[in-house]
Formats: sequence, C-alpha cells, structure tokens
Amino acid sequence: MNKSALSSAQKVADVGLEMYKLMAELYPICRSITGNGVRETLHIIGKHIPIEVHNVPTGTKVFDWTVPKEWNIKNAYVKNPHGECVVDFRQSNLHVVNYSVPVKRRLSLSELRPRLHTLPEHPEWVPYRTSYYSEDWGFCLSHTQLLELKEGEYEVCIDSSLQPGFLTYGEYFLPGGTADEVLISCHVCHPSLANDNLSGIALATFLAQHLRAETHRYSYRFLFIPGTIGSIAWLSQHEAETLRIKHGLVLASVGAGDKFTYKKSRRGNAEIDRATCNVLRHSGTPYEIREFSPYGYDERQFCSPGFNLPVGCLMRTPNGEFPEYHTSADNLEFVQPSLLAESFEVTLEIVDALEGNGVYINQNPKCEPQLGKRGLYRSVGGTQSEVEELAMLWVLNLSDGKHTLLDIAERAECPFGEIRRGASLLLAHDLLKQSEAYA
Amino acid sequence: MNKSALSSAQKVADVGLEMYKLMAELYPICRSITGNGVRETLHIIGKHIPIEVHNVPTGTKVFDWTVPKEWNIKNAYVKNPHGECVVDFRQSNLHVVNYSVPVKRRLSLSELRPRLHTLPEHPEWVPYRTSYYSEDWGFCLSHTQLLELKEGEYEVCIDSSLQPGFLTYGEYFLPGGTADEVLISCHVCHPSLANDNLSGIALATFLAQHLRAETHRYSYRFLFIPGTIGSIAWLSQHEAETLRIKHGLVLASVGAGDKFTYKKSRRGNAEIDRATCNVLRHSGTPYEIREFSPYGYDERQFCSPGFNLPVGCLMRTPNGEFPEYHTSADNLEFVQPSLLAESFEVTLEIVDALEGNGVYINQNPKCEPQLGKRGLYRSVGGTQSEVEELAMLWVLNLSDGKHTLLDIAERAECPFGEIRRGASLLLAHDLLKQSEAYA
Amino acid sequence: MNKSALSSAQKVADVGLEMYKLMAELYPICRSITGNGVRETLHIIGKHIPIEVHNVPTGTKVFDWTVPKEWNIKNAYVKNPHGECVVDFRQSNLHVVNYSVPVKRRLSLSELRPRLHTLPEHPEWVPYRTSYYSEDWGFCLSHTQLLELKEGEYEVCIDSSLQPGFLTYGEYFLPGGTADEVLISCHVCHPSLANDNLSGIALATFLAQHLRAETHRYSYRFLFIPGTIGSIAWLSQHEAETLRIKHGLVLASVGAGDKFTYKKSRRGNAEIDRATCNVLRHSGTPYEIREFSPYGYDERQFCSPGFNLPVGCLMRTPNGEFPEYHTSADNLEFVQPSLLAESFEVTLEIVDALEGNGVYINQNPKCEPQLGKRGLYRSVGGTQSEVEELAMLWVLNLSDGKHTLLDIAERAECPFGEIRRGASLLLAHDLLKQSEAYA
Repeated sequence: MNKSALSSAQKVADVGLEMYKLMAELYPICRSITGNGVRETLHIIGKHIPIEVHNVPTGTKVFDWTVPKEWNIKNAYVKNPHGECVVDFRQSNLHVVNYSVPVKRRLSLSELRPRLHTLPEHPEWVPYRTSYYSEDWGFCLSHTQLLELKEGEYEVCIDSSLQPGFLTYGEYFLPGGTADEVLISCHVCHPSLANDNLSGIALATFLAQHLRAETHRYSYRFLFIPGTIGSIAWLSQHEAETLRIKHGLVLASVGAGDKFTYKKSRRGNAEIDRATCNVLRHSGTPYEIREFSPYGYDERQFCSPGFNLPVGCLMRTPNGEFPEYHTSADNLEFVQPSLLAESFEVTLEIVDALEGNGVYINQNPKCEPQLGKRGLYRSVGGTQSEVEELAMLWVLNLSDGKHTLLDIAERAECPFGEIRRGASLLLAHDLLKQSEAYA
Repeated sequence: MNKSALSSAQKVADVGLEMYKLMAELYPICRSITGNGVRETLHIIGKHIPIEVHNVPTGTKVFDWTVPKEWNIKNAYVKNPHGECVVDFRQSNLHVVNYSVPVKRRLSLSELRPRLHTLPEHPEWVPYRTSYYSEDWGFCLSHTQLLELKEGEYEVCIDSSLQPGFLTYGEYFLPGGTADEVLISCHVCHPSLANDNLSGIALATFLAQHLRAETHRYSYRFLFIPGTIGSIAWLSQHEAETLRIKHGLVLASVGAGDKFTYKKSRRGNAEIDRATCNVLRHSGTPYEIREFSPYGYDERQFCSPGFNLPVGCLMRTPNGEFPEYHTSADNLEFVQPSLLAESFEVTLEIVDALEGNGVYINQNPKCEPQLGKRGLYRSVGGTQSEVEELAMLWVLNLSDGKHTLLDIAERAECPFGEIRRGASLLLAHDLLKQSEAYA
Repeated sequence: MNKSALSSAQKVADVGLEMYKLMAELYPICRSITGNGVRETLHIIGKHIPIEVHNVPTGTKVFDWTVPKEWNIKNAYVKNPHGECVVDFRQSNLHVVNYSVPVKRRLSLSELRPRLHTLPEHPEWVPYRTSYYSEDWGFCLSHTQLLELKEGEYEVCIDSSLQPGFLTYGEYFLPGGTADEVLISCHVCHPSLANDNLSGIALATFLAQHLRAETHRYSYRFLFIPGTIGSIAWLSQHEAETLRIKHGLVLASVGAGDKFTYKKSRRGNAEIDRATCNVLRHSGTPYEIREFSPYGYDERQFCSPGFNLPVGCLMRTPNGEFPEYHTSADNLEFVQPSLLAESFEVTLEIVDALEGNGVYINQNPKCEPQLGKRGLYRSVGGTQSEVEELAMLWVLNLSDGKHTLLDIAERAECPFGEIRRGASLLLAHDLLKQSEAYA
C-alpha cells in the first residue's frame, strides 16, 4: 500500500472537510446504546462504505451482561406553571437523560428538582447523562435555565419507549492479502456530541473508504458499536474470530484538542503500540503516550484479561479531560476539519507502518556491501552521509533475522517510513530478502 | 488484619508518646555489645512484650567471628592536676570509649592527649567511640572541655571489667497463620543515643505489642540484638530458620529527620522493597529510596551473599548523614514523639501491605463484569469514575493469575490499600477468587 | 599489569609530547587508501613498534568489494591564464581530490569550475575530498582563492598514477597470557589531517609501545589500516581469527576537543562498552556515551551483523561534529599534546579494566568476615568507613560467582580501580578466590 492516492496536502484537507460534513449530518440524531438513532446513523455511514447491520435481540446473554430493552424516544419537555415549555427535547436531545423511561406527570419544583441535572461550573452548558441499566428518568439543562425556574406545578413528559427489541451495530470487513486482521472500532451510542464520538465515526468511515481503494496485506474489520455493551456483545458472539486480530485501534475524540493522546494496549509493547509511538514521535505534532488503564473506551473490553487483544486507543484530548466532554459544548463548533484531517493522516501512517513492517535478511552480512557501485552512495567522499544512506546502513546492520523494520526504526530513532524506503532500495538491489518467518 | 484498633489519629499520636516514654526510660543505661546494659534494656522491653532473653557465651565461634569477652563498667573519670573531675562517666556514658579496658593511672596531658576524642567542628558535643575488638581505652569529651585542660599530671580511672561472660540478645516470636516469617530487627548496643537506636527499639516494641492484638497471616520474629556481632551470632545459630523469613525490616533512626529513607534489600526487588516503596510513595511524606549498599546496619549481615535475605532498612535520615549522629547531640531533645508516631504508622502500613498481598483470579475474565447490577457502580452514566470503581477495574483487569495485588497497585500507581479494598469488594461479590498458588 | 611505569603525571605528559612529535613527522605525507603514502607512514610507525606490513593485490575480492588500483601522485597544480600557479599540491596535499586520475589539460574557468571544491562557510579553509571508487578528478581550494580566479584559459595538471598494485596495511600482534585478543584499530588513509586521524595512529602506536613493556593477560592486535576497504580486507582474510577478539576499540580523533565521546559496540552492553563507561564516568573529564550507529569509522565493519564484534569507538569530538573536520584546519595547531596525553591515560585505564576484570568467590559468604582482626578495618568504631573498606565490603557482598568486578564497580557506582584494589586486598588475605569459570 502507498499513499499515492493522497499525495497532496490538499487531498488530506479535503478528507477533513468530508469527515466534518458527515459529522454534521449525523449530529442531530438522538443515538443511544440501542434504538432507531443507531440504525439511522449506520444507514448514513452505509452511503460511504458497505457496512453490514447486525441486530442482537433484547435479553441475549453476552458474558456477564444481558442485552437491554430497546429505547426510543419521540419527544420530551418540561412545562412551567404557565404552560411554557422550559426544557425541550426538540431543541437538543441532550435535554433528556438518555434511556429515560416514559413519564407524564405534574409535580412541584421541589419534587422535580432531584431529576434536573446541570453543570454549575459551566452555567450555559447542558450536561449529557445516561441511565442505561436502572430504570429512571430525568432532564438535563443549563444551570442558568435551572435558576430561572419558579416554584409551582410543572408538567413533565417523556414520550419514550423501552421495549423488547435489538442492540444494533455495524460491521465492515475488508479482506486483505491475509486473514490476519486489524480491528478499527468506534462507539456510535452518543447523541448530539461531536468530538465524542462523531469524530471517531467519521475517521473510521473515511479510513475504510480509503483502504478499499488500496492493496493491503492485512484484512480490516471496522466496528461501529454502542459503547461497552456493543463491544461486549460483539466479543461474546465472535470469540473465535478474535484470534485473527493482530492489531487494533479504538478511535475516539479525534476532532478537537491540540495534541494526540495514544493509550497503549494492556500488553504495553504490542506492535500497534510501537507503530503508533513511532508515528507520533516523528509526526511533528504534540502528543502524549499513556500506559494502559482499565478506564476509557471499548479498549476496556478488548483488553480484558480473557481477551488481552493488542488494541490501543487513539485520541486527541482523552475522555474526561476537556471541559466540553459530555456537555452540549461538544458541538460542531468544537471540532475542526483541519484536526480531523490530521487525525486521518496520522492514522493512515500507523496503518502504513503495520502494513510495511517485516523482517528482512541482509544478503551481505559480513561488512557493508559496496553501495557506491550500485549507485546507492554519494561518489564524492569526505562529506556527510544523507538520510537515505543512513537508513540503508541501519537496515543492513540490523537485518540479521532478529529485528523487524520497526525495531530498526526505533533503534535508529527515525521515522518508520524512512527505514521502509531504505529497505525498498536494498530489496530492489537484491541486498535484502524478506524473511519467510515473517511473511 | 486491619487498623481498626488504631482508627483515630489520636491513638497513633498516643503510641508516639508511649514510644518516647520508653526511650526516655532506656536512655540513661550504658549499653554495649555485651554486658548488663543490654540485659537491663531487655528487661524493660519485657514489660511491654514477652521477649525471651538469650545468652551466647564468650568464645563461641559465630562464622568468622568469636563472641568477645563481656564488658561492664561501674565508673570512669579524668581528674586534673588539682584533683578536679574534668571528664565524668556519671554525667554521660559517652565519655568513655565503649569497651575500654580497666585503667587507673597518672600521666601527663601530652601522654593523655591521644586518648581524648573530640569533635572540633561541633565543639560542645561529645563523640561516641568504640573499641570492641582491640583492647584499648580512651575518653570522649567536648572540644571546649579539651581546650580548657592545662598542662600537668592527670589521673585517669576506668573501673570496667572485660571478662568471660555472654553476648545477650532478646527475641520475641509471634506466631501467625503460617510459618512464613517477617523479621523485624533493631540494634540495642548503643548507650545514651536516642535516635540511633532507642527509636528503633521503641518502634519494634510497640509494633510487636500492636500485632499481638491482631490476627495476622505471617509469623513475626522481633530481634533486639547488638549490632554486627548480634546479627552474626543469631544467623550463625539459626541458619535453618532463615529459610522461613519471607520479608524483613531493620528499624533504625526513626525518631528524627524530616523524611523517610528506605534502603532496599540486596535483592532490590523483593516484596518488602516494593511494599515499602508503595507505602512511602503514597504516604504524603517526603521520602527517599536507596539501592542496597553493604554499609549500614544489620542488613549488612542479613543480606550477605550466603543468606541474601529479603531484608531492607527503614530509617529517617540514615546513619552518618545527620550531624548529631554518634554524638551527645543525639539525645532525647533530638527525637520527637510525632515523628515516632509517623514511623509507627508507616511501618504498620508496610505490614498491612505484606499481610494483604496475594494473587486473585478474575471470575469473569472476558470483558468487564456488570458491576452496576451488583450495586458496585454509579447508576447515572456520563460522569467520572471514582477511586473505588477504578480500583475494582484495575483488580479485574490484572487478576489473571500473574499479578499480585502489589503488582496491580504499582501498575495503577495507587496506594496498596485502595487496591486491597477494591479486591475485597469483588471477593464479597464472588467476582474474584484467591489463587491457591499464593495462599 | 599496573601503571607503575607511568606513575607520574610527568611521564604521561611526556607521552603526549612524543605522540605529537610522531604526528608532526607523519603530517606532510600524502596518504590515501592505497599507495606509497601508507607505506611511508607504516615505515615511520615501525621505528616505534615492530609492525608487519601486508600488501593485498589490486583486484582481490574482499566480500562484496574489490581491492582497487593503487594510487600514487607526484604533483598537481592549476595555472591561471598568466601561467601563475594558483592551486599547488606542493603547498598542501588536500588541494587534489584524493584518488584523482591523471590529467593534463587546458580549459576555461567555467569548464573547470564544477571540479573545484570549496567551503563557502569557512572561506579560508581547504576541504578534503575523495573519489576512491569512481574515476574522476578535481581540486580543493579555499573559497577566497576561488573568488579571486578570473575568466580565461587555465592549465590543470595532475601527475598521478592509478595502476595495479596493492592495498597496504600494518599489523602488530602482541601475545599475552591467553590467546584471547583485544583489537585496537585506527585508520591510516587520511592525508594531511591531524586529529582525524594522525591522533589515532599516535595513540595506537604508543599504547602498543607501552604494553610491550608490561605483563598482560590478553593478546593485543593493533591494526593500522585504510578506512573501510582496509577493515573489510582484513576481516575478509582473517575470519577465523575474529573469534578470538574479546574486546576492541577503534581509535580516532583523540587529539582535539574538550570531551571524550565513546560510541558503543553494536552489542551495546559488551564488556568493552561497560569498561569504557566506567572509566569515563569516573575520569573527572567531560564525556558522552553514544549508542552504536552504523555510520562512523571502521566499527561499521567490525560491527556488521555477520561479525558483530564487541568493538567500540573512542573519540573526542566525533567525525563530522567539529567544524575543522575534513578540512585544512584539522592541522597540527588544532591538536594538543595535553589532550593526546589524556587520551592515552584514559585508554590505558580502559585496558587496565579489561585486564583486571574477573569473577571472584567470597570465601566467607555467610555474614561479613571480621576484617578488623586482619588489619583491614579501622579499629576505633563510631566513625565513617573509608573508600578502601567500602570497596572491600562491596566485593565481599557481590562476589557470589555471579558478578564480575566490573559488575560490582557499576553497582557500587565507583571506579573499577578501587574495586580492583579492594579485591586484591581480600585475595591477599584468602578472603576471596578467583573463580575458575572466569580464568
């Protein structure tokens, strides 16, 4: 695979704009861990890539969990004593606690008050709250709205349904040269929240679209799943297939924030961890590498001890660490096409590193081969060596059957791409052969 | 074991005061590596815990060493040409070089001078000097005292005895649930020096007293021994028993100094080293961790290559690194009850970590178990996880039979106690089982 | 071996002056990778140590390379339109591109221009350039000289020859107590350049001269070889012998620069790497340790994967990292006898560490032996331990058959020499025995 189809910065920028457009289209939909919002979302993604939609029935046992009833909602509001609509689901789907049971009732402000969630420290923002697994209901509103509420009798209405149905997820499998798989996963359960995680959905979609047009060694499996219960359901029903997963990335919150954050897999030194570290280290962009912790996105499940898959999580600012997280301020103004484009580019480079890694054998291991007579070395001596020559020297020196190209890039402290190009030149001159041990 | 008996800060402070009181009672006694001073000291300790007193006869071969003659002293002085007592053992037992042979003689100041030890850099302090293994005598005095001495004939008297007798030490063995032992050792050979090491004696005594009232997995062996020759004698006569020692601490100089210093065992990564590092790291108190070196207290012997026991040394400022060390300034004003109390508390936490460590097996290793349905997880989603939830997630994620709770605490970078509490909650809900491999 | 013959600083300083004198004698000779310049150089070295001179015929296959034609040169110049000699080989042999083919021609300045090499950033300096493996010619001159050249017809003459002949190198083998070898290598192919590498030649010569007068465990093999092709030729013709090489150093650029730079062998943790790190760390002189990279001097070949010899490279400022590198400014004023002397001293200490390293067994592994009764410990207790006592304690504690003296020095963070002296004292008192496993 190469990036020729995306050789210009303009093309990358264009992808950023397309990702943003997709996010804008998905933004108004009221998603949850089940229900029509997810179906509608998958339908729109399906216009870009041919995903399969799967439905797991309510009540299905998935390890320690049970697929819950399906939740759908038509409308919800709070009316004040004057009959004025003071909290309105139609203005923002964040106003209802996600998975609220249906309710239609009149009650005093003091009775209502415990069911109203606000963010006093950000008085204009509406928080995002859920109550998936305990039947409950509530509203979210800005603290300013709350303070304006007067005593009196309020009317609350949540026109939702909680019925036997399905947990719905999307899957796109892109076969490659081998059955070994790269897993790309993103959560599709958040309602009108842009960075978390319409950005991850958009990145997965356009990565898939891009890879479809390329030749690649690995097969790629893209999962568009509700958080936690979705990955648990998928893992529960695909245990055998997980053995084929050689590398994986959870994509989340990739549309806002100055720097990248990569959270390593539980293994800590998996190839995906090392490839991502190499790409970020040489990306010229600020980044942070974190060790695995069992709190975050669906890597929690992929990296549970019974699976321990080599799956890391690529983010910009991580969950819970930006003030807009899980609030109405995580909106379409919060994310930027240029950051989406950069996230796309970095993810492609990670994929390139996975695709291009391998073990090669120096065919002239005793002393250096004479690169000059093959036109691979500057002819006037006494001057400094160049990047390409250095890359070839590193590849020759460490291609003893014990080092992958990624090992070499790490030891040379240089971008994987340079080492890969050095190896290509040597391969073309029969100075290197691919090891059969790592086909 | 738990700390319920000591749940209030007041109780810990009370222990600090009691420790100080014991030190004050022991302070005036003239101890040495043998003799009645040690016996008297052990007798007083015996009022708190039922120690056994052992006597090893002079001449006994203990590895490369021989138990020396027993030394006792009644009085000692230097009188000036006017018959005035200018150096007086009754004022401070530091005035005589410890283990001085008996002497009664008149001699000129210039003859006497080489036998007078002072500290010119601290002219008011009296140094502590010993001559255990070469028969010699001398006096220690303040440099100011020395400068006041006039020429003339002096009378020196050391009314000591150096006779066949015994090396005396105290031992208290507290049986636990298993025969595996934790060794707690302190040296009892220093005369009127408070921090080094009446503080260690007091800490060992009150730790023993506290543990007597608790249930504990390990057996505990407390040694109150003269430095060097005492540990060598004990090891020489208990080689087989050393195999039961799973962890150990030498306690010394724990009553003064702003920060803790822990010197690791020779192994460097023993459980005692890691437990102590975890406790100190999260203690909120300044501390320093040092690698093992073969110079210091009795860990020198416990960690000699033929034993290589997992014994570290817990101190505040280490031997030789505070100016008062081995001088008359290491007195009862130099140590503080509050610091003794803090040392007691930290030591208890280390013991708690040893007691509570173990390997557990996640009973739902594939994906996370649903903590919420067991009341172990906040029901309203969208907010941040709490300390207790995080601890449970860490325990679940790493309880694959390969990690102890201490491993987990290290990887989670959190106090052992939190991880232990997380494990307890999971055990109570059958989500965790203890591994038989680490009973 | 000991350094008694060099016990005074004056003797070391004298060696620095002698090294400088040898460099001054070799400086005017026009060396290259083949030809009479190398022969003349080896002849002069031969006045100090009895080196053998070897000739490898043109056309000999040495791994992937072929020994090139022999190059010699009598004269070369560029004359301006007025017949004035504006570039003159007799003034400096750097003026001709090394290995230039013979030429005698008239041509315009614009035709000549591409063959004139200068350093615009250092307008008074003449660069050093080579064209070993592509038949070509050219001149090097200062940028100031270049700017003064007027349009018109120039006469160029290079009175060189490129004929079948030999590649010449020098070898000095100094047998020791065992057949195990230490390899010392330096390149002899550079013309009038002082630091790179007449300094390395001088250091190797005087190290050899010094070691001849000493008893030593290892055999020493000194190579005076042209860079790259010389080491490739030697390795090609001595593959079997390389198995005896236990340690090695390439010496280069050791006469100028404030600090030492040691580049580790490819193995990264070879004994030579650790010995050199220990010596430099405790040298009191600034230094830098670098990981191996496949670019530099002949360690490139010694450390190629097919050999992977434990050969590091000792330099001061490394190749390419001082502005004078490969220019006429790398002259006899650039190097200093005092720095040469220091390089000599450090190299001797490294050799001492290799010679003195070994595994010893503590004969009293259970507890410390009583050093005092053997006169090895201060008799008055209560004071601090001294360097020598500490060294003995470290050796005793770690001499369990698993640690070399170098391991002990590293763990004790002290100079190898101190540990070695501690071991010697213990050996003399039968407290230590040499392990047969490391004779």
